[in-house]
Amino acid sequence: MEDFKFNADGLIPVIVQEASDSERPHGRVLMMAWMNREALEKTLASGKMHYWSRSRRKLWFKGESSGHTQDVVRWYADCDKDCLLFEVRQATGACHTGYESCFFQGYDMRGQPLAVGEAPVFDAKKVYDK
Amino acid sequence: MEDFKFNADGLIPVIVQEASDSERPHGRVLMMAWMNREALEKTLASGKMHYWSRSRRKLWFKGESSGHTQDVVRWYADCDKDCLLFEVRQATGACHTGYESCFFQGYDMRGQPLAVGEAPVFDAKKVYDK
Repeated sequence: MEDFKFNADGLIPVIVQEASDSERPHGRVLMMAWMNREALEKTLASGKMHYWSRSRRKLWFKGESSGHTQDVVRWYADCDKDCLLFEVRQATGACHTGYESCFFQGYDMRGQPLAVGEAPVFDAKKVYDK
Repeated sequence: MEDFKFNADGLIPVIVQEASDSERPHGRVLMMAWMNREALEKTLASGKMHYWSRSRRKLWFKGESSGHTQDVVRWYADCDKDCLLFEVRQATGACHTGYESCFFQGYDMRGQPLAVGEAPVFDAKKVYDK
């Protein structure tokens, strides 16, 4: 495998984008997370996104408890090989709060939150507080 | 300003995406970089992207030497407030190698690089080796 640059903690940042059907990836950005080498290897072997959870300090198979898995469609590294970009097909929604994307909260140029212009796509309470 | 979560080094990761004209941001991901609080403040005050350069250890006004500035259109934070997403209008190209996006190199599921399916949009040698 190409020699990607993991940081001092053995992690590399990963941008996750909704898959598009064009040569030029242009889907919505769904989330950002971190992978260690094992998470990257499991992702490539299974075709489903795996991360390193920094808060739980363990390998994290996205969708394991919620069912909201992410199938890999295409993936890229940046010019410095220290950041990865995955195009995925997201089941239901990516965000643990129930929104399609973790980036649902916009801000104005003074850094004040704007009204959220979309509704959650699932009921987080039902999915996670089982 | 909202209290975003900067890491132990005082930095927050920033995803930079080409602006789209839909409620739902869906442009191409151009680059990923880091901001400290000053870079975020300068970005919001000027409407032009500023970062913290970890390699040069200084504030970095994107496009200062190349002219390839990035005008802020909209911006978001994620659900944990520890990652920012900026929609920008990119002058010419974002990548220092001459490509539109830093994520021009795709990989297969064994981690082997694929042929690059696009051409640079500017001559990096002419722009940076002045």
